Amino acid sequence: MPVNLPALLPEQLLPIDGVTLGIAEAGIKKPDRKDLLVMVLDEGTKVAGVFTRNRFCAAPVIVAKQHLAQASIRALVVNTGNANAGTGEAGIQHAQATCAALAELLGCAAQQVLPFSTGVIMEPLPVDRIVNGLPAAVANGKADNWFAAAQAIMTTDLVPKAVSKQIELNGKTITMTGIAKGSGMIRPNMATMLGYVATDAAISQTLLQSMVQYAADHSFNRITVDGDTSTNDAFMLLATGKAGPAEITRQESAEFGQLQEAITAVAAELARMIVRDGEGATKFITVQVEAGKNPDECTKVAYAIAHSPLVKTAFFASDPNLGRILAAIGYADIDDLDVNGIQLYLDDVLVAEQGGRASDYREEEGQRVMNQSEITVRVVLNRGTATTTVWTCDFSYDYVKINASYRS
Amino acid sequence: MPVNLPALLPEQLLPIDGVTLGIAEAGIKKPDRKDLLVMVLDEGTKVAGVFTRNRFCAAPVIVAKQHLAQASIRALVVNTGNANAGTGEAGIQHAQATCAALAELLGCAAQQVLPFSTGVIMEPLPVDRIVNGLPAAVANGKADNWFAAAQAIMTTDLVPKAVSKQIELNGKTITMTGIAKGSGMIRPNMATMLGYVATDAAISQTLLQSMVQYAADHSFNRITVDGDTSTNDAFMLLATGKAGPAEITRQESAEFGQLQEAITAVAAELARMIVRDGEGATKFITVQVEAGKNPDECTKVAYAIAHSPLVKTAFFASDPNLGRILAAIGYADIDDLDVNGIQLYLDDVLVAEQGGRASDYREEEGQRVMNQSEITVRVVLNRGTATTTVWTCDFSYDYVKINASYRS
Repeated sequence: MPVNLPALLPEQLLPIDGVTLGIAEAGIKKPDRKDLLVMVLDEGTKVAGVFTRNRFCAAPVIVAKQHLAQASIRALVVNTGNANAGTGEAGIQHAQATCAALAELLGCAAQQVLPFSTGVIMEPLPVDRIVNGLPAAVANGKADNWFAAAQAIMTTDLVPKAVSKQIELNGKTITMTGIAKGSGMIRPNMATMLGYVATDAAISQTLLQSMVQYAADHSFNRITVDGDTSTNDAFMLLATGKAGPAEITRQESAEFGQLQEAITAVAAELARMIVRDGEGATKFITVQVEAGKNPDECTKVAYAIAHSPLVKTAFFASDPNLGRILAAIGYADIDDLDVNGIQLYLDDVLVAEQGGRASDYREEEGQRVMNQSEITVRVVLNRGTATTTVWTCDFSYDYVKINASYRS
Repeated sequence: MPVNLPALLPEQLLPIDGVTLGIAEAGIKKPDRKDLLVMVLDEGTKVAGVFTRNRFCAAPVIVAKQHLAQASIRALVVNTGNANAGTGEAGIQHAQATCAALAELLGCAAQQVLPFSTGVIMEPLPVDRIVNGLPAAVANGKADNWFAAAQAIMTTDLVPKAVSKQIELNGKTITMTGIAKGSGMIRPNMATMLGYVATDAAISQTLLQSMVQYAADHSFNRITVDGDTSTNDAFMLLATGKAGPAEITRQESAEFGQLQEAITAVAAELARMIVRDGEGATKFITVQVEAGKNPDECTKVAYAIAHSPLVKTAFFASDPNLGRILAAIGYADIDDLDVNGIQLYLDDVLVAEQGGRASDYREEEGQRVMNQSEITVRVVLNRGTATTTVWTCDFSYDYVKINASYRS
């Protein structure tokens, strides 16, 4: 069960003028499941994205980057059940063939289509099944199909993940809706496995690219489930411009700041949903590192804690074996760290200071917080003013179970 | 059950002239278990060691380093059940008090005693119980007590770990015997949790220090169970000099090379024993990275594979879901890595090349190797001549079980 994730209702998701979504059952890996999504964009929609930095990046990532650089984008196609990663030259051809087939159906150029895949690595993409499924997905296209789209991109996810938000910008209502998937192989280094946020705001291509990077850095790039960076990570931001004629063109403008804040909030909410539905998760952990010399050292400490199997199994067991957190801080690779200057808090409980257990700390207090399903680990380094927040989950039997049986 | 680790017999362990070992039940954490070890060294024994680089290093590590720099060492004292780490200034005083009490019993200075602790972090050391247990441990001292010593330093270890070896050096028989403990929180960054190798060879202090570093780098620094670096790691090399009058003083000498090779072999065997008894381990995995530009990049690739929870759970399941290994290679943080130039082998089976699955690869072949309890993952980078080998184990339900219930 995802951690404190209320059931998503289709009517909570707002359509974005200029975007239609269609899904189909292409039988890519298993029969009778929605596994193909086509998003069609009105002409003039701006698209920007960030992609995985894994060197074994998937064929669709390579092709999507090329297309994004070459042409205005009119459609996105996403399949689950197969990652088309570690598939060599054949994988590239399969991704291109998928784009070409969809382009023919839509009457645009193949370069105007971005392909995305998620699923098992190093198995040939069943490209014929995908191509055969495209007409049904296109025919299914409609604006109020975000809920079905969120379902169609799931793999080991237990629940679909989506969110809508509206803000007022210069007296106009701007709408944004996003979907994401991801549950394991989550330590994004650019973005999560797959995330898409669309808005009807009007914004220049340059600013859109800057915004998607900022949003990724403050959302999908701040989560981890198991420390594995996927081959297929991609986070795309789509702006149809339908809500207003005045395009945002200045990074210094109030409109840019407001829109960036709202888009980042949507992305961060999707990212946290991924952690709440992390494979086997029973707890949602916020790791907040404060008063560091620079963001880099805060991030090192935060991820050392968030990745430690020993820390994560202690959370699973609700065991206030908090020395494991000190050990993780200690091996975070900060050479000149003086451990005597650090404070460790669990929620509001001061656990450790001056290199050891705080004199007022009582195990009952630690136990009380550990019993919760939402816990904040706060580390105060007392060396500067930088801060980082990372979100993660605990490590349970079910993580092993899910990943020991993923392909079967 | 440890992976392919034959039962250790007390008679396999050879005494080292100049070293006596005594154990006791001090009731440190639980009653009725051997939890205290005292090693007494004849005068003139040289001692060198490497210690954890965790910034939250334990109080005994701090004290042992100071004593090693100050005096000739006459005794080592090791307790299990409590790590005396994350214990601040009180922890230092407790470690010093332990040394002082043992020194008084032995008639030497407190600085001539090295303290070691292993167990739970951030709980006060029950120093009185340790001090009260010391007389029994001293009284128990004898030369043929290595098996009991190996048992006395266990925590979550399922079996004691020890090995003896003899070589001929200049016509004299040189004996070496080592013990080690460690099962979780294993990603040594200097050494394992605790390892001790003694020899009756005669060697200068400078060369002994060089030798212990070399041996650690090729043994304990090449293993990982869960990626957590302990606060208490220490690997000590003791040379009594009893086997011969001619001290080894030249690093270029044949004797130095032969002794270093033998000591390293003993340390590597102990290190592999730790992995075979890794928490929850069902398989022993050798990760060999070849033809890299430099050792550093080989090590990055090897540890990316050896730490990936997804790779480790696939081994547990005997599932040849080998794309996960490609993904780990891809995020090993080697910026200019051309994935098309890499070959991946599972034992003798070529799995991947040219960026994807090898054309001759058949799943039955991958399955055959995955079913084994000993597996070699071989990655050929084809960029140079450097090589690294790392040993690890799989990731099972039992790892979670052991670490979710360690303190109870």
